[in-house]
Amino acid sequence: MNILIKNGTILPMNVADDMPKYFKGNLGIEGNKISFVSAEQSDVDNFRAKHHENCKIIDASGCIVMPGLINTHTHIAMTLLRGISDDVPLMEWLNDHIWPIEAHMGYNEILIGAKLGALEMLKGGTTTFVDMYPYEEAVAEASEEAGIRAIVSPCAMDFRMPHFEEDWRAVQKRFSNSKLVSMMIGVHAIYTCSPDNMKHAMELSEQLSTGIHIHHSETQDEEKTVRERYNANPTEHLVNVGLIKRPTLAAHCVYMSDNDIKTFAENNVSVAYNPQSNMKLASGIAPIAKMLDSGVNVSIGTDGASSNNDLDMWDEMRTASLLQKVNSMNPCVLTAYQVLQMATVNGAKAIGREGELGILQEGALADVILVNFEKPHLYPHTNLISELVYSCHASDVETVIVDGNIVVENRKCTTMDETKVCTDAQNTIDRLLNQ
Amino acid sequence: MNILIKNGTILPMNVADDMPKYFKGNLGIEGNKISFVSAEQSDVDNFRAKHHENCKIIDASGCIVMPGLINTHTHIAMTLLRGISDDVPLMEWLNDHIWPIEAHMGYNEILIGAKLGALEMLKGGTTTFVDMYPYEEAVAEASEEAGIRAIVSPCAMDFRMPHFEEDWRAVQKRFSNSKLVSMMIGVHAIYTCSPDNMKHAMELSEQLSTGIHIHHSETQDEEKTVRERYNANPTEHLVNVGLIKRPTLAAHCVYMSDNDIKTFAENNVSVAYNPQSNMKLASGIAPIAKMLDSGVNVSIGTDGASSNNDLDMWDEMRTASLLQKVNSMNPCVLTAYQVLQMATVNGAKAIGREGELGILQEGALADVILVNFEKPHLYPHTNLISELVYSCHASDVETVIVDGNIVVENRKCTTMDETKVCTDAQNTIDRLLNQ
Repeated sequence: MNILIKNGTILPMNVADDMPKYFKGNLGIEGNKISFVSAEQSDVDNFRAKHHENCKIIDASGCIVMPGLINTHTHIAMTLLRGISDDVPLMEWLNDHIWPIEAHMGYNEILIGAKLGALEMLKGGTTTFVDMYPYEEAVAEASEEAGIRAIVSPCAMDFRMPHFEEDWRAVQKRFSNSKLVSMMIGVHAIYTCSPDNMKHAMELSEQLSTGIHIHHSETQDEEKTVRERYNANPTEHLVNVGLIKRPTLAAHCVYMSDNDIKTFAENNVSVAYNPQSNMKLASGIAPIAKMLDSGVNVSIGTDGASSNNDLDMWDEMRTASLLQKVNSMNPCVLTAYQVLQMATVNGAKAIGREGELGILQEGALADVILVNFEKPHLYPHTNLISELVYSCHASDVETVIVDGNIVVENRKCTTMDETKVCTDAQNTIDRLLNQ
Repeated sequence: MNILIKNGTILPMNVADDMPKYFKGNLGIEGNKISFVSAEQSDVDNFRAKHHENCKIIDASGCIVMPGLINTHTHIAMTLLRGISDDVPLMEWLNDHIWPIEAHMGYNEILIGAKLGALEMLKGGTTTFVDMYPYEEAVAEASEEAGIRAIVSPCAMDFRMPHFEEDWRAVQKRFSNSKLVSMMIGVHAIYTCSPDNMKHAMELSEQLSTGIHIHHSETQDEEKTVRERYNANPTEHLVNVGLIKRPTLAAHCVYMSDNDIKTFAENNVSVAYNPQSNMKLASGIAPIAKMLDSGVNVSIGTDGASSNNDLDMWDEMRTASLLQKVNSMNPCVLTAYQVLQMATVNGAKAIGREGELGILQEGALADVILVNFEKPHLYPHTNLISELVYSCHASDVETVIVDGNIVVENRKCTTMDETKVCTDAQNTIDRLLNQ
């Protein structure tokens, strides 16, 4: 399909900091790519002349037109577990609530949870996400059905290496020609994956020409365990094992020394910052302002909905900025535009898709969202960048296009039956909780 | 009007911590008061028999029915200034952006800003707010028009005492019989109000039988200034001047020693916790978990929309809890239910309206909201309390009743022309910025 988006306020996210950041204009989509982004009426006329009737026209008056958001660390099947346990210590949360339920979650339960997560993300303007969970094949299946772009990470972990092998092979076999699904190799974390298994994952990532996705330095306990076991801190351990030489996306990164940050910058490791999960589980505050100063590529993740408790990137952007300001006692750090970059272009870079995703420009993939600005909580309009980050909500997203397909229109998902997705999730968690 | 709310999930907020917190049931409103809250069909039948046709029926299936939220510290006219300056140091923010515009804001500009703020709050389920700003008469006028409950605080401040006198007299004269507007006496802050002017405010609050609303210990600078000027910290100064003996609502309270907290608890001072503003302006983190432990009554405020950047109590509740968890490195502090109490019953206590507001029970004022739970981001339903605090948004509020009047129905404000309120605000800020 060809799509012409007219009369919007275009926020391309492809400009340097000192350039104008948005303008009144139009955007054309041919197939799954953006064919033009411009303020010129002549481009609109040419596009219409070329496509005649074979062109869907979307009036974007009163809307910001921007790249879809990229959530670089989550476990979307855990949306099924939203609210089953909160406000308890981490180990009680895992041992008494999360793990006992997860033990009963197989392919089908994960498929159902993933559909709910995909639906929530699409309706909130997230068009790409990076996942890690058992049965990533099911997450990939849900994503194709929903029409969301997924980077799934079958995950190496000492106690389930055979499952890791099965899972990545299944994803590879079934989705290697997918337009929406691609793969990273997951390494659950240093404390759950031996150096040998880590090396196996590294070889595999090299063989498949993909990056590594890992939980890194999330808690004080993890720091302590790794140091006791390997006589090195988590970042030093990644260096020692050599994993840092692979393209790496490291989630959390709460306990990072200045040296660790330097190591990440020098090795082009990307970070997925998960502020709300780190706050809710009382893990700590990642030194993101310092990382940005040192040139580390920082993106944003929501983590799973059971420790957040949603997959809302708007909430996460706002908290990302506010938390760093108070933590640095400096209101200037993590400006609104920096945070938007983290949720778009930096996210694309973190998954090796710079220039292709997270940006509106000719030739980029057509992952585009329309945010309705005609709402009282967004008035008056004085600085749209600031409004997007500090005042906008997932519910302000009106239209979502992924890979050239309209997947949300007037806030309704076009690819899935919303009621059925919600009901299936409810029935499934009710059954699991009553087991 | 009489209103029957049927088939909802009722969250009365009047139960002890270990009691069931919500149930399927119904709620009746006669005039401006709640006449029953119950799970019994006989109560519904009696209500209908009594009122026959003279009764509006609202089907609350799929909705939580709960008390309207109480925002205990804000400056709603500053909604006009949303986004005009962000990500800059506090003094630059004030000197170069906020104050130059405020210098041109008179009655009419404040009226227009206050209408926008009232509209945003109502649509997000806030039914009562405590304000402080020049021309509180204008804020009161806007609130009556919007149909929101307002506690306005004309404000003593050294450089504008004549205006303070004019303002409280105007409010007193015009709104003393209002069903929606009442008054507290504002003391801007210790560093802007001499002990003599503070004493005058205290006498006035006694004469008018109302409480005092003050900015308290918001920044390190304030702490330092007060100590240098009075050889006491801010809380000690309140004790020394005697203000603490009046019913007091203290906003911010970021720099509070254990002794200060004890003093507040002993003197029944209520606190308005403003986490997002304190984060955005990098003021610091208030020791709220300690205050709760010590028995201080803590409520929640958004502060003004220029330092937040919204008046959204859902966002504020979520941040309130998450920030204390990470600050205490304890995921158990500020549970979801405690935070809901802060935004309802504790807010009512902070303004001396316990049992009358922030609660659903027979005889309480009919300030009631319906939150639509049939949304993907709120599924599955396993713990509604947790979903309200950790996953809900202002846009999930469907219906809002204040003092027995339906002011928001199906997310549309019934009392004001939303487009006009937004357009007036836009025109006004455009004019002010171009001066």
